[in-house]
Amino acid sequence: MKSPSQLARPHVPSLHAYAPGFQPTGGGWIKLNTNESPYPSSPKVAPAIIAALGTDASGLRLYPSPTSAALRQQIAIRHGLAADQIIVGNGSDDILNLLMRVFGGASVATGFTLPSYSLYPVLVAIQDGRSELLEFEREMKLPISRIADSSASAFFLTSPNAPTGVGFRTSEIEEILKSFAGMLIVDEAYAPFAEENAIELLARYPRLVVVRTLSKAHALAGLRLGYALASAETIGLLDRVRDSYNVNHLSQVAGVAALADDSYYDEVIRRIKTTRDHWLKKWRKRGWFIYDSSANFLFVEPRNAVGAAGPAIAVELFEFLKARQILVRAFPSHALTAPFLRISVGSDGEMLAVDEAIQAWLTPGP
Amino acid sequence: MKSPSQLARPHVPSLHAYAPGFQPTGGGWIKLNTNESPYPSSPKVAPAIIAALGTDASGLRLYPSPTSAALRQQIAIRHGLAADQIIVGNGSDDILNLLMRVFGGASVATGFTLPSYSLYPVLVAIQDGRSELLEFEREMKLPISRIADSSASAFFLTSPNAPTGVGFRTSEIEEILKSFAGMLIVDEAYAPFAEENAIELLARYPRLVVVRTLSKAHALAGLRLGYALASAETIGLLDRVRDSYNVNHLSQVAGVAALADDSYYDEVIRRIKTTRDHWLKKWRKRGWFIYDSSANFLFVEPRNAVGAAGPAIAVELFEFLKARQILVRAFPSHALTAPFLRISVGSDGEMLAVDEAIQAWLTPGP
Repeated sequence: MKSPSQLARPHVPSLHAYAPGFQPTGGGWIKLNTNESPYPSSPKVAPAIIAALGTDASGLRLYPSPTSAALRQQIAIRHGLAADQIIVGNGSDDILNLLMRVFGGASVATGFTLPSYSLYPVLVAIQDGRSELLEFEREMKLPISRIADSSASAFFLTSPNAPTGVGFRTSEIEEILKSFAGMLIVDEAYAPFAEENAIELLARYPRLVVVRTLSKAHALAGLRLGYALASAETIGLLDRVRDSYNVNHLSQVAGVAALADDSYYDEVIRRIKTTRDHWLKKWRKRGWFIYDSSANFLFVEPRNAVGAAGPAIAVELFEFLKARQILVRAFPSHALTAPFLRISVGSDGEMLAVDEAIQAWLTPGP
Repeated sequence: MKSPSQLARPHVPSLHAYAPGFQPTGGGWIKLNTNESPYPSSPKVAPAIIAALGTDASGLRLYPSPTSAALRQQIAIRHGLAADQIIVGNGSDDILNLLMRVFGGASVATGFTLPSYSLYPVLVAIQDGRSELLEFEREMKLPISRIADSSASAFFLTSPNAPTGVGFRTSEIEEILKSFAGMLIVDEAYAPFAEENAIELLARYPRLVVVRTLSKAHALAGLRLGYALASAETIGLLDRVRDSYNVNHLSQVAGVAALADDSYYDEVIRRIKTTRDHWLKKWRKRGWFIYDSSANFLFVEPRNAVGAAGPAIAVELFEFLKARQILVRAFPSHALTAPFLRISVGSDGEMLAVDEAIQAWLTPGP
């Protein structure tokens, strides 16, 4: 008899699962490694969940809306689109996964930039597809003509980019849509912190998909909520490969409550951007190279006490911070990213603690 | 430029999404169409969720455990297995989907009985695979030798069967494992209502996967929680294609609370079985054929006032009940199931209301 690995599709046993950022258990950590919000979600979220629970959690007895009907309606109103242009996912990762199941497949090429969200090649590989990587130059200028020339059926564009934080112009994204013949998936996980986004292009480009999440600006990473905006034709394709009850009832209810409270989130986003811009300036004054950020994190190239930068220096600071229970993220696998650390924008207190730790690292010991 | 449908994998535009049971909005319905529990979940579930929410839902700010660590530990204790023999899913549908992504694929055959859970052919088709259907005879005896002779790489066995409710013996399942060379996926969604299950076979058969859900006996359909038990080798394969944060934080916490409260659920299951067996006897006395049920539903072949049965009679009663806001499930697409209705076991009051409606249907009008 064959073993399970021998019975699996041939490409599966050699797949490597996505490595999520370290999630510490136990208290005392300053957690700036996965771009979560330092502030809680809207105060309307918890009461909405508690009301939906009902007496003895009897609100969980029944299956949820299979189409996330009320939440899709709320999203439609928010973005001025029709409900059939919207699909809701169990996190935006669910949406990205569905996109690959529709547009990826054995020997089909899917493109993305390097660096960008490191989940994309994992999703491509699960479909036994081929990843077409377009490397950024150090200045992180969008490689529009190389995207146009690629043979990819679909292209993932993280905008603003992660892990650099660099934002792209709507006009640049439109240039891609005009010249690239495949599906363009603009992953706007960090768009609430940016000045521009691609949503206005949806009306003119049926090959555009805009993906959003409630994990970052909306402080609901624990709930797993994301959505995509696209043409009704594209949404119809995604719905064919979606789990019929992919979003649980409490998440749907929480999403409606959160997306109805713009004034709260506008203020949270303003605070995070203020903190971000403060430390961007401050750390640049130290002589550190940092990309302009349109996101809720800073991609910094640390220099040590003698002014040296590079992969070893980045690792040294990473470990120094970790030893002090401060978690940031390192990207050691590529020359463009290895000299950098990505630091999520925390509360003002957390950022002060990071800065103090950096000062300690820079100060020669006794 | 191509359209999204032209850019999609060729098999995707013609896929048919799974049709979930009708989920009515608005009150007043007696909902016996999707085998939800008539009783709420353990009284420990709601407090656990509320505690996990924290002040201002700040407990949702961070990503959940990517491996559902605490819940897997709870499941491991419950079934006497190691944590690496367990995978948790966003509903058991998520698990079934992962199984198809590992063991299904273009032109690969996947087997299941007809009737059984109608999601299987949908999942096979999404993978562009080939469905190998083994039809039951009217007596619903497990076709062990036909399963052994099939060319399927994996076989889904709903045990107890849905929609018939017929339970299978552990010894019969072991016979399949001895003679069938592929992966045997025993979908035990209804096993808490049955006398036997396949879990004890896991120790001896690495090709066995047992799938469980908290949607039925545990009254948590709205939360989306399921899990699979298998060899560590099989779980490792499934983990490679799993979304890294596939189960949200509140569901993980609720699952731990629910699975720690066996005494509550033992009593709920006892009540449901008592109600089931009462109406099974009562309706059989009316001359209706009903399969023995090891699940939380009855598969009944209604006879009308003049003693006639058949697809048209089943549709007539279905519509009669629906007009009175009583939802049951019809399966009109196959000769074996079309004369039947599946009635989930509700509360005693709900079942009385169903019985009264049936009597009204049987009573000639004025």
